[in-house]
Amino acid sequence: MFLESEEEEEEEEEIPPLMAVEAIEYPRGGGGGSGGELLVPPPNFAMVDKGIYRSGFPNPANFGFLETLNLRSIVYLCPEPYPEENAEFLRSHGIRLLQFGIEGNKEPFASIPKAAIIGALKILLDLRNHPILIHCNRGKHRTGCLVACLRKLQSWCLTSVFEEYRRFAADKSRLSDMRFIEMFDVSCISQCVLGLIYRYNGCGPQSRRLIYKEKSA
Amino acid sequence: MFLESEEEEEEEEEIPPLMAVEAIEYPRGGGGGSGGELLVPPPNFAMVDKGIYRSGFPNPANFGFLETLNLRSIVYLCPEPYPEENAEFLRSHGIRLLQFGIEGNKEPFASIPKAAIIGALKILLDLRNHPILIHCNRGKHRTGCLVACLRKLQSWCLTSVFEEYRRFAADKSRLSDMRFIEMFDVSCISQCVLGLIYRYNGCGPQSRRLIYKEKSA
Repeated sequence: MFLESEEEEEEEEEIPPLMAVEAIEYPRGGGGGSGGELLVPPPNFAMVDKGIYRSGFPNPANFGFLETLNLRSIVYLCPEPYPEENAEFLRSHGIRLLQFGIEGNKEPFASIPKAAIIGALKILLDLRNHPILIHCNRGKHRTGCLVACLRKLQSWCLTSVFEEYRRFAADKSRLSDMRFIEMFDVSCISQCVLGLIYRYNGCGPQSRRLIYKEKSA
Repeated sequence: MFLESEEEEEEEEEIPPLMAVEAIEYPRGGGGGSGGELLVPPPNFAMVDKGIYRSGFPNPANFGFLETLNLRSIVYLCPEPYPEENAEFLRSHGIRLLQFGIEGNKEPFASIPKAAIIGALKILLDLRNHPILIHCNRGKHRTGCLVACLRKLQSWCLTSVFEEYRRFAADKSRLSDMRFIEMFDVSCISQCVLGLIYRYNGCGPQSRRLIYKEKSA
């Protein structure tokens, strides 16, 4: 139905440049209710920003969906080894695994390690790693904290950052996470990336580039 | 800090084409905790897909944030007239308002009108309207149903469609909405767009194009 390559141009006064996209077939014959294969996103899946996705732990049922994202990298926020089935999926698709082993936070005894979040943020900010998927186990706490720190870097007010955190964590929201998010000083990012240039594709339709330079450099 | 135009190229073996983005200053001097103005996204704001956003009703406090999205269109799903302040914001930014007046659904007496959802879906699928924001009052029910129908068109399994619906509606989730979503036959879209070509920028990094053609045409 929608894999036709034939075109019938509609008469329109103004056709902006966005129309000049390349015709690419929709993967898996999906959509349209025409009997195409159903896609199964991982739990708690969402698009964070252009080129950045988040979710809970993907299992083999999600691999078909993940293929449609054309991922270049995965940021994995748990300390446990990556399951062989998942590792094989990554190898066969040329996806790079970047692991930041953050222990599951059993409050009030532990809190999110700042260094891991900073390391993961650097990865997120580098367009060369996009499209990128962030995931932990449930896509609630570790992933939620990382995305929240990204939002702070995007100048979101704390109320909105918390609203988004809670949307994914729901009744598992943790005060210790929210305290970590509130206290996280995004200016430290600039102090950690001396000599590196981070290109960041911000929220919105146009590519943007943030260039971080050490102030004292 | 990050508005520097000076570049220090890091030595890297492989620089994919994504690096070739244009240098655009980050709006509002945001991020980095450098004292930039905070951005206030509308309630229940999220990115649905590349070029498609969703939220609750934006108020003037959100206009600064909305500016960063460079919206071309807004799909407004309530029957009430658009507030003058918001209409003025749209006029001054060249944003087109597309209204589909769906009554607030007080179950079990009313349900989402299929024709309005189909009309709004057609707008969403047309790249010429992107970047586009969908909103109703709370960004839960009307917006949730529209996004859910889009997900069905993207071949998401119903479990994942409902998971996303519930993430935004939370304790206000409605069985009547979920029934509507389940029953919505996305193949009807193809039957409604005879003679029109819809270009759709699917989930993922690459622009895709769906071309809908009436089967019987």
